[in-house]
Amino acid sequence: MRRAERLVWMTKSLLDHPNQPLSLSDLSVGLTAAKSSLSEDVAVVRQVLEAKQAGQVLSIPGAAGGVKYLAGISESERAGFIHRVRERLTDPARILPGGFLYMLDVLADPEILDYAGRLFAREFVEQGVHVVVTVETKGIPLAVATAHYLHVPVVVVRREHRVTDGPVISVHYVSGSTRRIQTMSLSKRAMPLHARALIVDDFMKAGATVKAVHGLLAEFSASVVGTAVFMATAVPAQKLVDTYDSLFRLGSVEEGQPIFITSP
Amino acid sequence: MRRAERLVWMTKSLLDHPNQPLSLSDLSVGLTAAKSSLSEDVAVVRQVLEAKQAGQVLSIPGAAGGVKYLAGISESERAGFIHRVRERLTDPARILPGGFLYMLDVLADPEILDYAGRLFAREFVEQGVHVVVTVETKGIPLAVATAHYLHVPVVVVRREHRVTDGPVISVHYVSGSTRRIQTMSLSKRAMPLHARALIVDDFMKAGATVKAVHGLLAEFSASVVGTAVFMATAVPAQKLVDTYDSLFRLGSVEEGQPIFITSP
Repeated sequence: MRRAERLVWMTKSLLDHPNQPLSLSDLSVGLTAAKSSLSEDVAVVRQVLEAKQAGQVLSIPGAAGGVKYLAGISESERAGFIHRVRERLTDPARILPGGFLYMLDVLADPEILDYAGRLFAREFVEQGVHVVVTVETKGIPLAVATAHYLHVPVVVVRREHRVTDGPVISVHYVSGSTRRIQTMSLSKRAMPLHARALIVDDFMKAGATVKAVHGLLAEFSASVVGTAVFMATAVPAQKLVDTYDSLFRLGSVEEGQPIFITSP
Repeated sequence: MRRAERLVWMTKSLLDHPNQPLSLSDLSVGLTAAKSSLSEDVAVVRQVLEAKQAGQVLSIPGAAGGVKYLAGISESERAGFIHRVRERLTDPARILPGGFLYMLDVLADPEILDYAGRLFAREFVEQGVHVVVTVETKGIPLAVATAHYLHVPVVVVRREHRVTDGPVISVHYVSGSTRRIQTMSLSKRAMPLHARALIVDDFMKAGATVKAVHGLLAEFSASVVGTAVFMATAVPAQKLVDTYDSLFRLGSVEEGQPIFITSP
């Protein structure tokens, strides 16, 4: 294989395996090249990605040495993405009765999911996340996109469990909005013990749901390494969980009033 | 930018935008190169991907001419994937009371989701899919992975609708397993009219759910271009929908008996 072809194949092999350790032998599958040429090729890929802030190629030292691609996103791409989403979400026609903001279409958009997944993954990749946890239903696509770039399983906490979940652990909590007692459950088999968990969700108001997920994950002896939400409300400023990251912050939503969305 | 660097960047630009028309100007963003060099670079990427059955780079003729990357998967990769999933799923410890097969962990695995998404997308990309439709909850990750490679929105049919869905259309149907009347709803804003829809789900037994989705989609004047399921049961052989594709077929599941899974 010529060098030009090798570079294409190596770029693809890295990009298709985000956050996965790859040895030079993994990268050389299907290539006929000396290890020294492969190292040079890796150096070119690394240099291009880093020059464009489009990701990193980390070296893994030691006997099992190799490289690892981390997906990235440049500052200008991030700014463009944030701007486009804000433009789209501040349309007054999105206001639903009761002061809710219609966001389903945005949370279904493949480009938005991909960007959000990259941003969440980049933010938490150094925490050594083992599993991405979300609560059904609207946060699942975001969680899947994030788990893709972290290369970890996505675990879904359910409102109502089913026979196909196998044995589950359930917790009760008081919903922040309805003040009613709710239940959430997690399959014992789906969630490993002692895992480092990243919680991903679409929306946070008071934070009661995320706080309940913390309680549920404690039953699995998990450590919560972070909480990443797409949209958090500005009020209440004090959430029921101490720390969280959100891509957007939403002002109060009232019919006939403009919508204010900032990006923290 | 040197040619080696250009090839890396072009490979990344294509792979990051599956099933999206890109003009040479799109591809040249951040590059300093003549159009003729870019065309040569595209030709190298195309040749490598096609030689390895790893995808296609299609030319789009006409004034808005350009190229489009379609994700692929080689026969040997597909065979390896099918084999690994079968090995994992035929573990007798997966049998749940009532003759159900525990699959949540497999449907949460980032590698499996990625492969299934590529396979479903490749199967239906030529149908001009506008939207991937699934029913909450377990099929959502598969639908998200498929929608990523088709670059279309993922629309989730819900068992219970919420205020944040906005106005919804609901249908009633009789569940294949419980024989009880069930409801499913779809947000009017989330689903465009007259769309070409690909239905994706994790499991099909009689097909009552998928049939109900057909009925619901008819309310949106949609055309169903296909149904892609991860696992279908061998019995009943005659499903309530005429056509569907499944990656795996499951024999009867009984405690103490071996599990048989084939790949159609």
